[in-house]
Amino acid sequence: MTDIMSETVTSPARDINFIISLLEAGDAKDLRSYLADIHPADFADQFEQLSNDQREGFIALTPELISAEVLAQLEDEVVEDILPLLPSHQIAGAITELDNDDATQIFEEMEDEQRSEILEVLEPEDRANLEASLAFDEETIGRLMQREFVAAPPFWTVGDTIDHMRATGEGLPDLFYNIWIVDTKFHPIGHIPVSTLMRNSRDTSLQTLMDDQVVTIAQNMDQEEAAYLFEKYHLISSPVVDDDGRISGIMTADDIIDIIQDENKEDMLALAGVTEAGVTDTAFSTVKARAPWLFINLMTAILASFVIAMFEYTITEFVQLAILMPIVASMGGNAGTQTLAVAVRSLAERDLTSQTAWRAIRREGVAALFNGIIFAVALAIIAYVWFGRQDIAIVAFIAMIINHLFAGLAGIMVPLGLKKLGFDPAVSSSVFVTTVTDVVGFFAFLGFAALMLL
Amino acid sequence: MTDIMSETVTSPARDINFIISLLEAGDAKDLRSYLADIHPADFADQFEQLSNDQREGFIALTPELISAEVLAQLEDEVVEDILPLLPSHQIAGAITELDNDDATQIFEEMEDEQRSEILEVLEPEDRANLEASLAFDEETIGRLMQREFVAAPPFWTVGDTIDHMRATGEGLPDLFYNIWIVDTKFHPIGHIPVSTLMRNSRDTSLQTLMDDQVVTIAQNMDQEEAAYLFEKYHLISSPVVDDDGRISGIMTADDIIDIIQDENKEDMLALAGVTEAGVTDTAFSTVKARAPWLFINLMTAILASFVIAMFEYTITEFVQLAILMPIVASMGGNAGTQTLAVAVRSLAERDLTSQTAWRAIRREGVAALFNGIIFAVALAIIAYVWFGRQDIAIVAFIAMIINHLFAGLAGIMVPLGLKKLGFDPAVSSSVFVTTVTDVVGFFAFLGFAALMLL
Repeated sequence: MTDIMSETVTSPARDINFIISLLEAGDAKDLRSYLADIHPADFADQFEQLSNDQREGFIALTPELISAEVLAQLEDEVVEDILPLLPSHQIAGAITELDNDDATQIFEEMEDEQRSEILEVLEPEDRANLEASLAFDEETIGRLMQREFVAAPPFWTVGDTIDHMRATGEGLPDLFYNIWIVDTKFHPIGHIPVSTLMRNSRDTSLQTLMDDQVVTIAQNMDQEEAAYLFEKYHLISSPVVDDDGRISGIMTADDIIDIIQDENKEDMLALAGVTEAGVTDTAFSTVKARAPWLFINLMTAILASFVIAMFEYTITEFVQLAILMPIVASMGGNAGTQTLAVAVRSLAERDLTSQTAWRAIRREGVAALFNGIIFAVALAIIAYVWFGRQDIAIVAFIAMIINHLFAGLAGIMVPLGLKKLGFDPAVSSSVFVTTVTDVVGFFAFLGFAALMLL
Repeated sequence: MTDIMSETVTSPARDINFIISLLEAGDAKDLRSYLADIHPADFADQFEQLSNDQREGFIALTPELISAEVLAQLEDEVVEDILPLLPSHQIAGAITELDNDDATQIFEEMEDEQRSEILEVLEPEDRANLEASLAFDEETIGRLMQREFVAAPPFWTVGDTIDHMRATGEGLPDLFYNIWIVDTKFHPIGHIPVSTLMRNSRDTSLQTLMDDQVVTIAQNMDQEEAAYLFEKYHLISSPVVDDDGRISGIMTADDIIDIIQDENKEDMLALAGVTEAGVTDTAFSTVKARAPWLFINLMTAILASFVIAMFEYTITEFVQLAILMPIVASMGGNAGTQTLAVAVRSLAERDLTSQTAWRAIRREGVAALFNGIIFAVALAIIAYVWFGRQDIAIVAFIAMIINHLFAGLAGIMVPLGLKKLGFDPAVSSSVFVTTVTDVVGFFAFLGFAALMLL
């Protein structure tokens, strides 16, 4: 039995073509019995891989299989697509069943009309929770937190707490990992892991068990900041406090993992000049997400072309320059991108701070000089062997060192500067850095060539 | 009191210059009392920001402040640097005090000589645990898992379990979140969250409480795979099983967060052609981590130059080509990088699978054609306005579309191909893709120019 369990859960027995064949046969019965056996997360993964038409066919055939748990597991964009296809009573049921953080995420994806329809049929408490969450900005903790938690005063005993939990029953969250110890004003003053509580005898007072180090998260905190605190302090759950320091909800590590993945994806795509990407992207949305940065790149490439055009005459005289100049620009571009990726990552991990900025700039400068010299020598040799001209080799040598230096310094100073000015360093640094390396690369190379060769 | 607590923990009262000034004054007493107040994670962060000399000075003055908890929080590379400076008995004490996963990480950073010294003074059980962990490959779960966990047979009651835990005391992990229900062969057959256990009366049998869906992780599993399972199934902790399916340890979400951050960092740096980067990097290690990829880039840039050299005569006749050709190459390079970043990220998130590969390739092809046409028109107009030559505008137009198409297809097919061949798609895709876009860009542009203009 064990083996079957783990098998079913970690790798679904059948691949997606099995679902597709049942769909095409309109075999609702087999679809139901197959999906009853697999984990909602596995089904959500498979459902995401269906085409739009197949999803619509699925919902037309067996709408009830899109359960609350499945909705909570699907990617937001897929939820947005299918909500209009599901009966309102089913969505309302799912929202009631789910913890409020999951319910909020589903609610976020609805059209206004459907929202009011659903709000009408919800219980007052569910409605109040939803509205409270939606009052916070997207990507802040107030929007994402779970509003149910277990708190106890320090003068209770282990026994009091256990009795209280047994009595409360439904009002508790499905899962929790810490009891938050609060003062009379509901400020968290300590915490007791549930596993510690369980190990101690009923008459132990919470005061003696509690750890008085509590990392609290503010309701208005950006999700990225909260994720950083979880990473830094190795948290499993953490209380969220309102402006007066009163506990108003909790965040747990499983939701933080989702946040971290979203933020990492955002940074990685932003560095490459992509604003958004998802499983359901069409060719059209792909164009929309990428054309703006390509347009900016076109502008900066033209800027670099102007630099080349300044030396039109030099190139006519020495066509070898046209052959070598992309090497200088490309090496600078790569070196700059390397430095930039390291800098953006270090900023995200808070390793690069105002305290360490100068040390990092110095290190990048020295490293750029080193790499510059290494590859300047290499290019000079290649140029000399290829064209047999010492003067062109010298020009290539000097231009390479200069461009590496600019690349290294731009790679670290552009993201630091953007961060200091309050911008996201991942988003627009690339364009600045490659513009610098293109313009400097062409200008240094052709400029020195004009001076030395003409 | 609350406010002070949260303040101390989430933002240390003093910045790093305070520590430095105490260090310079040799004020061990104030250093001790300041550090007693702040969270070990905050202290670890500050210690990482010290220079090598300052770290040595710190350890010479107050070695005891590098506690077990601090060692567990420091980055591996910093631990490696300072272990030789710490007294062996202190390290042995830390290893005994820590959970075995943290102990293993510290042990990994030691020189052989220090290892045998420490092994000699450890308790047999701690030694056996360490050796068992180190028998697994780096970055596999066997190395990273915690070897202490709580398991119970299904026929026990809640009361039995609680009594067992109270009796066992020291043998239990510091924190745990689930009770793993095992059969007589120690195979996990279900789990009960501690919070569920607590809420139920003492006479409830575990069998009735347990959730029989268990996501197990194999000892030999790569850490990235395990992180993916945590993300997918929203796990807080998960049992690790040996080759016979017997539970041998657990993984928890806080450690998974560290793994996710490491893997993301690796992918992001690899895409930019950096093999490694850390807080303690010197200029020399920076050069070492980047020069190899710059060297490969030099080779591919020279390849692109050969293509240009093939059309030396065409360029001499029409110097405008030298001015415009970097634009075509740069646009293709950017479009390819965009597609590549999306593909690498989708592969990491398992959104891009063999099931969805063709759909993604088709989408990228269509999007590339669209973007190609948009920017081909733009460049053609610019070329016409700039140089007043219709023929050059047409050449630019055709080359731009071709290069966008190749960029889009290379951007998705290169990482898919590398993955299929068993390579990490993040590591070497960039170089292939930019080589394609450079070579195709120059060849298409200059080739059509030679055909049309000469």
